[in-house]
Formats: sequence, structure tokens, C-alpha cells
Amino acid sequence: MALTAPTRAHPLYQERDPRRVREAIRRKEWRWGTAGLVPGYTQANLVLLPKSDAFDFLLFCLRNPKPCPLLEVTDPGDPEPRRTAPGADLRTDVPRYRVFRDGEVMDEPYDISPYWRDDLVGFLLGCSFTFEHALQQAGIPVRGLEGDRPTFSAYTTTIPCTPAGRFRGRMVVTMRPMTPADAIRAVQVTARFPQAHGAPVHIGDPAAIGIADLGRPDFGSPVEVRPGEVPVFWACGITPQVVARESGVGFMITHYPGHMFITDLRDEETALS
Amino acid sequence: MALTAPTRAHPLYQERDPRRVREAIRRKEWRWGTAGLVPGYTQANLVLLPKSDAFDFLLFCLRNPKPCPLLEVTDPGDPEPRRTAPGADLRTDVPRYRVFRDGEVMDEPYDISPYWRDDLVGFLLGCSFTFEHALQQAGIPVRGLEGDRPTFSAYTTTIPCTPAGRFRGRMVVTMRPMTPADAIRAVQVTARFPQAHGAPVHIGDPAAIGIADLGRPDFGSPVEVRPGEVPVFWACGITPQVVARESGVGFMITHYPGHMFITDLRDEETALS
Repeated sequence: MALTAPTRAHPLYQERDPRRVREAIRRKEWRWGTAGLVPGYTQANLVLLPKSDAFDFLLFCLRNPKPCPLLEVTDPGDPEPRRTAPGADLRTDVPRYRVFRDGEVMDEPYDISPYWRDDLVGFLLGCSFTFEHALQQAGIPVRGLEGDRPTFSAYTTTIPCTPAGRFRGRMVVTMRPMTPADAIRAVQVTARFPQAHGAPVHIGDPAAIGIADLGRPDFGSPVEVRPGEVPVFWACGITPQVVARESGVGFMITHYPGHMFITDLRDEETALS
Repeated sequence: MALTAPTRAHPLYQERDPRRVREAIRRKEWRWGTAGLVPGYTQANLVLLPKSDAFDFLLFCLRNPKPCPLLEVTDPGDPEPRRTAPGADLRTDVPRYRVFRDGEVMDEPYDISPYWRDDLVGFLLGCSFTFEHALQQAGIPVRGLEGDRPTFSAYTTTIPCTPAGRFRGRMVVTMRPMTPADAIRAVQVTARFPQAHGAPVHIGDPAAIGIADLGRPDFGSPVEVRPGEVPVFWACGITPQVVARESGVGFMITHYPGHMFITDLRDEETALS
């Protein structure tokens, strides 16, 4: 199967029912990034950890709500996210996964059934793909969604997260270039979505948060910053993957960056009024 | 020492620095309820549990954010709430405590130092005393604060909480009587304070949520409902104490109802804009 991402012409971009998109993902008909799929529905970052690490990680999320906004935490051993996507299966319904051992990526499979354990707790964390739709609705262009193949740009920063137990590390951010007027409006729009990372963490100088070159993102692919635009940075749910490495976490499964779990939650259900 | 609560004439009601009020509590000069103290600062319900129960309880709080809004979770064995009241000590800075064994209250001490264990995790949960000040600022009378001795009325309902691990039980609510017009405004005012239980869970018929007699609260003392007023019910942070009993929790320490921990957080710091 060719793994070059399909273009906007792919029919799944027209699908409006999140369950049908998850079914296509479960059948492995879709193994690519989920940016631009089912606009208006909440996408989620996935973290799976053994119960023995779950309290520390839950505390980490509570202390770092910008990169790690909690949408749902599953019971140990239960692969079904009963609150945000009843009937779904976290072992198969993400397009691609990453398996970490001792902090290092040791596999990037499309199905994690072979890795499943009865002590795994699932954490679904909000994703900025959620507010990208809201930005567009507000008339703010989102460059990563404009090309033939929707994408995003994310970077590891020098911003430290607040540690909790064994979990510590630096924050990952996404970047979107926009005019200063749009940036101001974007602060207001995204502040309504605290469960999708909320308002930006930085505007302007990438070097101030340890990013050397916007043209070389650590995750995703570059988007052009045009003259007169400022880069705007939001906390990103890839952060736990950097934390896994920096903390040397024994065993952890996550989504592959940009390949999110799609919930049944409408974006407006988690928005502030 | 007489334990009849002092009246409004007590000088501590004039104190505006939460640290000085905590110091008076630590010196056991104040062993009473905290309603009406340091208006504008966030008060908190306390739950202390062994690390072995902490993940389940944290999950319980996340699944029941109305009765259990999380303000802070401490590291195991650390009695200092470093984020909401640096320098404070959860073992001494609450006016009175309850110690539960196997779900039953076995002591109601003024200092829990003898019960402290190095595996205890502290949970500080928001309290409706926070939004009472906001209601008053909005011109809505709060009857429990009007008498000589500030008080509150709370009731165990038939509303089930969402279980998590070993924790399950019914929700406790506070009740405030007000005119229908004030009730509508109170919904708006309190919705701004999700970390202090947020908007009401019920308005009107007490029997619909299993309350037989408003004149006989399970916690606190009765407040008068006058002709033309409706009772308005908010989720209450005493809920974990009912959950302790209904779940048969092995070991748990809480505040004594109405005798809260006072943080350094200003109410507006946790309010929605």
C-alpha cells in the first residue's frame, strides 16, 4: 500500500460522520494524517500507559493543561473510550501509532493489538486540529489546511513543563503564520477551546522559545511564513512523546504525530460559551 | 475552649490576608466554619488519600467535575499545597478534619499530624463559598451569609456520581433560596466559576433529587425559604465524604463540612472571562 498521503480529492475528506471515518481507519483504508478530516469534530492525541504510571501522568496532565488537556481517561484494560466515542477501539482506530520502550520509539505500527496489555490506561488529550476549524469559521486562513495535502508544523521548544512524579520534559508547540490582526483575533477564538490547547503560548520570536529554524519542524512539515506575518505558537499534544524520551518512560504507546483519534464530540461541546 | 461559633463581630471576619487567616487556624484560634472569611479568596474542600487510591480518586474527580473541581493535587507525602498556598500545611491549616476508616468517621480532630502518612496525596477541590462572594457582588442576596453566624445548607441527593475504580456514591448539593429572577442571574454568575462547582445542578423541586425536607439539611444548618423563592442547588465538595461511606474507602481524611482550607488564589484567577 502506498503511504504517500492522498490529496484533498480523496472521498474521506467529504465524510461528515466521525464513526464512518473511524471505520475506514479501523479497516486500514486510511493510514495518514487526520488534519482536515470531519471538520467540527474533536480530534485527540492518544497516550497509553500502564496503571503503575497512570497517576503520575494524570497529575502531569493536570499541571500542564495547555499541552495536555484531558478529554477522557479510560479504565485500566478498557480499550473503548466510552465517553467520547462509544463503540470505538483505541487499539485499531488511530491511523498509526508509536510504541516507546525506555523512552525510545521501537515500533510505528498501524494496529497495536499485539502490544495491548490489561493494565493499560488510555488518555485522550485535546488537539489543535479542533480549533483550526473554528479559526477558518472566523475567517482566519490556516495555511496548513490550504495545500493539496493538509499538514501541520510542530517544534520542540525550551519551555519546561511542570514535572509530576517521573514525568518531565519540554513543551512541543504547533505554529501557524498569520497577520497581526488575525493573530489577535486568533487569541480570542482559540481561548474558547481550553480542551484543544486554548490560547497561544507565544507570538513572535521563535528563538525566544528555543526554535532555531521555522523551516525545519520536528514534527509534520514546514508551512510558509509570508512577509508581514507573525508566527503564532500553541501548546501541542505531541508533548508527551518528548516527555517519554526525556523521562525514559518504560512503556508507552501514543498516536503517530498528526495521526489522531477522532471522537464523537462536536467542537462546540467542549467550547466555552 | 468554647466551640460555639463566634458571631460576625469576631475580628477574623475583617482580615483580608488569607495567610493570616491560615495562621490563626494553625494556632487553633479559629476552629469553626469558614463561610464569610476572606471574601474574594478561593476556599477548598480537602481530601487526603493513600497513593494506592489516588489514581482512582483523581479519575473520579475528572468524571465528576461539578462536585469535585480540582484546584490542586499534591505530590505523595507532601503536606504543602505548593501551587495554591505556598508555605501552608494541610495537616494543621484546616479548622477541623474528619478521619474515615472503612468508610466510617472515626475521629474529628483539629490537627491531623498524628494521622499523617508519607503516602498521602492531597486533593483540593473548589468550594461554593467562592461564588457566594460573586453572587453578593452581583447584588444577589445569599441567605446563609446574612445572619449573625455565617452558615450553609447541604443535602445528600439521589443523583449518582459517575464511578471510577472503587469510588462511587451519590452527590451532595448546597441549596440557596432566591427569587426566580435572581436564580436566572445566579446561573450566569456561577457558570463563570467551573472550579467552584459552576452552574447549578437543579432548580425547584427538592423531591426530584431525593431531598425530603429542606428544613433538615444533612450538613450545615437550615436556611429559610421565603414565599416566592425557589431553592437553587449546586454540586458540593462534601460529596467525597458520602462517597467514602458508600464505597467503604479504607483510609481517608477530609475537612469537617464547612471548615474549609483557604488558598491564596483570588476567585477571579479561576473564573472564566
